[in-house]
Amino acid sequence: MSTIKDVAKLAGVSIATVSRMINQNGYVSKKTEVRISEAMEELGYEPLIIRRLADHSMPTIALILPDITNPFFSELARAVEDICQQKGYTVFFCNSDNQDFKEKSYLEALRKRKIDGIIYASNYLTQEELHKLQRDNIPVVVLDRSSDNHKCTLIRCNNYDGAQLAVKHLLDTGCRKIAHIYGPQEIVTAQERLNGYEDYVKSFSWYTPSLMAPGHFQLEGGMQAVETLLLRHPDIDGIFAGNDFMAIGALKALHRKGIQIPNDIAVCGFDGVKLAEIIEPELTTVAQPIYEMGETAARTLIEQIGNRDAKPHLEVIEINVSLIIRESTRRECESQ
Amino acid sequence: MSTIKDVAKLAGVSIATVSRMINQNGYVSKKTEVRISEAMEELGYEPLIIRRLADHSMPTIALILPDITNPFFSELARAVEDICQQKGYTVFFCNSDNQDFKEKSYLEALRKRKIDGIIYASNYLTQEELHKLQRDNIPVVVLDRSSDNHKCTLIRCNNYDGAQLAVKHLLDTGCRKIAHIYGPQEIVTAQERLNGYEDYVKSFSWYTPSLMAPGHFQLEGGMQAVETLLLRHPDIDGIFAGNDFMAIGALKALHRKGIQIPNDIAVCGFDGVKLAEIIEPELTTVAQPIYEMGETAARTLIEQIGNRDAKPHLEVIEINVSLIIRESTRRECESQ
Repeated sequence: MSTIKDVAKLAGVSIATVSRMINQNGYVSKKTEVRISEAMEELGYEPLIIRRLADHSMPTIALILPDITNPFFSELARAVEDICQQKGYTVFFCNSDNQDFKEKSYLEALRKRKIDGIIYASNYLTQEELHKLQRDNIPVVVLDRSSDNHKCTLIRCNNYDGAQLAVKHLLDTGCRKIAHIYGPQEIVTAQERLNGYEDYVKSFSWYTPSLMAPGHFQLEGGMQAVETLLLRHPDIDGIFAGNDFMAIGALKALHRKGIQIPNDIAVCGFDGVKLAEIIEPELTTVAQPIYEMGETAARTLIEQIGNRDAKPHLEVIEINVSLIIRESTRRECESQ
Repeated sequence: MSTIKDVAKLAGVSIATVSRMINQNGYVSKKTEVRISEAMEELGYEPLIIRRLADHSMPTIALILPDITNPFFSELARAVEDICQQKGYTVFFCNSDNQDFKEKSYLEALRKRKIDGIIYASNYLTQEELHKLQRDNIPVVVLDRSSDNHKCTLIRCNNYDGAQLAVKHLLDTGCRKIAHIYGPQEIVTAQERLNGYEDYVKSFSWYTPSLMAPGHFQLEGGMQAVETLLLRHPDIDGIFAGNDFMAIGALKALHRKGIQIPNDIAVCGFDGVKLAEIIEPELTTVAQPIYEMGETAARTLIEQIGNRDAKPHLEVIEINVSLIIRESTRRECESQ
């Protein structure tokens, strides 16, 4: 932790001058003020009084998520908030929109506003940013993202196995040509789900890479992917979508075309959002325990805030997924 | 704005002592520190350096909303964020859960963390809290709530007229006994929609107050309300739900009972969320221009932050709603 002495030295002024400026007690020239401010910035120096004020405020954490309109993330937010409320914390949500410059802005804004901890459920956290946060004693828990390269606690699901569960189930219900709608491939979860699908089906004679189409983890993306897939392969009889949001879009597009679900085409999603039960037909999905994930993330983070001065944790918590079978795949088996 | 002199006076110590504490430059007893801290709190005093740090950080506003899982609010959040991004602002979202103590916590946390402005789309903002924010020079724009009693800019829709539009449309499609699923009556929008419904139908011979059932602005609430209403009045042929989230729940409950929509019972919602188009059957709704509302709120707030030292604005911006007719009410007229 740097001191007022370090600031004075770097700015090339006396301690008394820095003190006058902090105190607003006596004259300091504009030019000197700028020099002192820059030195403070560079050293990450902050007067004790600021740290005190931060300590006095309500403890607050932030949840950075990529898409607030995706029910997976709003349900996750719900869980994080419930735990925080029990523990006397408030939560700020930040919507990064999967854009790295936005994520950077949020991290910067949160750091400057003395946030007590961050749950990071988005994509572009770099080692450098993580290091900056840790230097400022801000614990970080990463949710649902890459398992390596991060020097902090990580909570995630076995996406690869989940994808294979989906494909196996579609085959079991009699599907003979299964397509995949995938999420953005710079996102690890989307990658792993695609890999799980591809590794399972690539030995089948019907398989070809053009059975995969992008849906951008979005509702509209799911709708468009159905158009693309049906043009390429009018004979598909099963679709595995990399998240529920895209699967719901796919159901809509199929319905508009008068295609019967599940008898013409069966559809399976991934996530287990509440909405999957509400739509018609109800959606079969590989469910992540969304509430449990949010809860675990919040509890872990709050514990780390309590032990802020300990070394950063590097734990990886892997949570199991499970298949929930509903109308969108419940059809008479054609074989087996 | 209070000064270091006021703090010293209230704490009963010398200016030099306060200065030593702020500066962490020399000895101050624990007891004195506490006294000085209390005096600072009471006077709302903050050393110039803190205000400077706040100015240096990225400008950030907060959107306080009652329910992050309701798509109306996540779509609103989207709009607020788009504008903020254009203008170089970041946004923190706070989910108040319609609980006044949570709202208070958020306001306090935001105030302490030097937020630049607040869009308030929740329920319990008191005059006192508003006054505190204004004292700290934090502009507030209130969205979608009460039109009186607030000394700040207010953006809202004509809920009363919208409700009447819905009821009139249901009558036009041939409905002869229309029920209403209403939101929490401490929320002004829910109140106004209920009043709009009741004023329109109370002169009809079929009308009775037991045609109204609460749905708490929630999906599950809409489902439960259908159960209640059908027990009381098996002969209803139209439902006006006070928001889309409840209407979607109502559609689900009706579908599970094997009731044909719209021929047995027609359903109309309120809000105009994207999801209303995705579900089956597609939902007729009184649409608020959600994006425009969020956009206007964000633009107005950012303008006020730019003119922070001007008197608080008291403008009321009323935005029109419109009926969007879809499958859930599109049936053959029985009469007219």
